Amino acid sequence: LERERFLRDVKVKESVIALIGNEGGWSQKEVEMAQKYGFITVGLGNRILRAEVAPVVISSLILFKSGDLG
Amino acid sequence: LERERFLRDVKVKESVIALIGNEGGWSQKEVEMAQKYGFITVGLGNRILRAEVAPVVISSLILFKSGDLG
Repeated sequence: LERERFLRDVKVKESVIALIGNEGGWSQKEVEMAQKYGFITVGLGNRILRAEVAPVVISSLILFKSGDLG
Repeated sequence: LERERFLRDVKVKESVIALIGNEGGWSQKEVEMAQKYGFITVGLGNRILRAEVAPVVISSLILFKSGDLG
């Protein structure tokens, strides 16, 4: 799956909805559906995160980028 | 407890050891003992994190700062 952007490269808005893929990753069809509704795709780098850890990691990074944590 | 610095304000080295307080927070004596061994104190902002979530959050932010995640 092509991901041209990383989380560090995008600007965080005041309100964010993050969709997190399942353990198998996103299908092309799912990505296109999300993009149709205005979501953008970002990667987190080379690490593969466990499904129960990913939401905490992503929330942490979004809050950090917004200046609201860390 | 005085914390003059936040995680975002400190430089992350190649290797980091993070000590995370218990739910009651650090005592002055514990802080002084850690500082004696070269640890620095940093805050994460106003959020109070659950003890089982804090390590994931802190690891995420350290890796993000080092360019290794996100």
